[in-house]
Amino acid sequence: MNVLITGGAGFLGQKLAKQLLSRGSLKDAQGVDQMIDQLILVDVVEANDFGDQRVKVIAGDISNSALCQSLITTDITSIFHLAAIVSGQAEADFDLGMRINLDAARVLLETCRALGHQPKIVFTSSVAVYGGALPEVVLDTTALNPQSSYGTQKAVCEFLLNDFTRKGFVDGRVLRLPTISVRPGAANKAASSFASGIIREPLNGHTSICPVSPNLRVWLQSPRYAIESLILGHDLHARALGVNKAINLPGVAVTVGEMIEALRNVAGDEVVSRISIKPDSQIEAIVKSWPASWDATRARQLGFSGDENFESIVRAYVEDELNGKK
Amino acid sequence: MNVLITGGAGFLGQKLAKQLLSRGSLKDAQGVDQMIDQLILVDVVEANDFGDQRVKVIAGDISNSALCQSLITTDITSIFHLAAIVSGQAEADFDLGMRINLDAARVLLETCRALGHQPKIVFTSSVAVYGGALPEVVLDTTALNPQSSYGTQKAVCEFLLNDFTRKGFVDGRVLRLPTISVRPGAANKAASSFASGIIREPLNGHTSICPVSPNLRVWLQSPRYAIESLILGHDLHARALGVNKAINLPGVAVTVGEMIEALRNVAGDEVVSRISIKPDSQIEAIVKSWPASWDATRARQLGFSGDENFESIVRAYVEDELNGKK
Repeated sequence: MNVLITGGAGFLGQKLAKQLLSRGSLKDAQGVDQMIDQLILVDVVEANDFGDQRVKVIAGDISNSALCQSLITTDITSIFHLAAIVSGQAEADFDLGMRINLDAARVLLETCRALGHQPKIVFTSSVAVYGGALPEVVLDTTALNPQSSYGTQKAVCEFLLNDFTRKGFVDGRVLRLPTISVRPGAANKAASSFASGIIREPLNGHTSICPVSPNLRVWLQSPRYAIESLILGHDLHARALGVNKAINLPGVAVTVGEMIEALRNVAGDEVVSRISIKPDSQIEAIVKSWPASWDATRARQLGFSGDENFESIVRAYVEDELNGKK
Repeated sequence: MNVLITGGAGFLGQKLAKQLLSRGSLKDAQGVDQMIDQLILVDVVEANDFGDQRVKVIAGDISNSALCQSLITTDITSIFHLAAIVSGQAEADFDLGMRINLDAARVLLETCRALGHQPKIVFTSSVAVYGGALPEVVLDTTALNPQSSYGTQKAVCEFLLNDFTRKGFVDGRVLRLPTISVRPGAANKAASSFASGIIREPLNGHTSICPVSPNLRVWLQSPRYAIESLILGHDLHARALGVNKAINLPGVAVTVGEMIEALRNVAGDEVVSRISIKPDSQIEAIVKSWPASWDATRARQLGFSGDENFESIVRAYVEDELNGKK
């Protein structure tokens, strides 16, 4: 089978690609394991191909329908659509957010519909589709109410993917990811960038500014479980999903203060002393609008699992990204 | 002030236009009554101008951005966006539904954003944004879960209108209308067309086929209250609406059997004998996915009112459309 990953040069795209190459197979629509013959990574910058002959790297803008049509043929039976403009950037550059987060998804869906071969599409959504007055724990039945352009664009694509799936144009599934922490690499323009930065920077010997107050609650998932969830979300049989294809994935509910204490337990006072708290009202407003936890019963029934606690997430980062050094 | 009505030749557009001409004014963003200087009615067919010099009729497709840009200038301070492909037709012709129900709204919103004058936009939404496993009474906090392409397109536009409003590009408000009954005129391709047809046709001496079973529950609003709601929805101050601009309007909950009995009470056995019941599984599936009632507390707090019961709706139709003859 041939697999396409949009946003293939991004942090999740690269980790997913590596994991798929190591597994070597995915389940098809009938639930049968199929060897991955080709893995296409498309992104605005060239992705790492890991020196693997199965990988084909394409640099380009997937909101361009000609590119999209050239990439997606009836041979592409699985698409992980990860390409996105992150929350802070989509809020600052409305047109760019609409183009990549909404129009590109539409182009992708229409391209698949025109081909008629009903590929599996795994679409990643986010805590940002929720907002406004929220219950303590968000349920599957809680209304989406995005309070950012990023969240709006994700919510819109969820509905489109559901309808394209209901009509039989694609076989879609939506994974709503908690905020991913600890992301490796550099800070980005996501409003939630700090949720990785306040752990990653101090562990790498650098200072980090935390733009939200320590009592702010966040809902987190490690990169390890995010990747595992993307693959399980792909492999699920369409029948298992019911009429709403969106799944709220398991996460860990913590305050920012508790995150800092978990870092102290893992790495000590000196590392924690590199964090300084300087609230930024714009970032705080966006992050505060997101749910601090949601009910993941459905996800667990479908076989998804999650991190034990935030300390285990910090330890996983140290293992995976720092070779155990802290 | 200059007012634009899209779908201005349609049944609601024409009734709204007539009512606006008779009132002569609407409230501006500050809540001050302003005379209506011009009322532009755009639709694919030429609307009736009621021989009123304030009315300007334009025939054209509002998904055409050049037309949209020529219609919307900074002089247009209020837009009632009523143009839509109805549920049954949007399900049968996916491309047409996407173009008119989604793309045209996007063009309209982007045109307003480019002008920067933040017009009021009244957008009509529908019971069709809900679906799946629903509570007995749908609440404001119930998740949208459309099970038709029409419902999906309406839900998507609700989110876009909310975000364009949050960003300050427009001053939007969404009115979720119950199924309108009794519509005058001919049957249309809405899955809910029968909800008017089984009353209207027999009262006009014609037979009518009811494509759903008598125990199916529906949520209805008369044209009178729909028009009153559109005007109040326009006149509300943006501050009154909070972060979610969608309002579930008051309706009347009845079974189809109860509708028929109300007709019997108003017009007698002979009129009712013109109805025959022949269930159509496709129509029943769409209508069944809609809520049979929703909580309209918020709407009532904002000043919206509704019909007393279905018998009063039938009597209003006889008064308004048949000059009291039955």
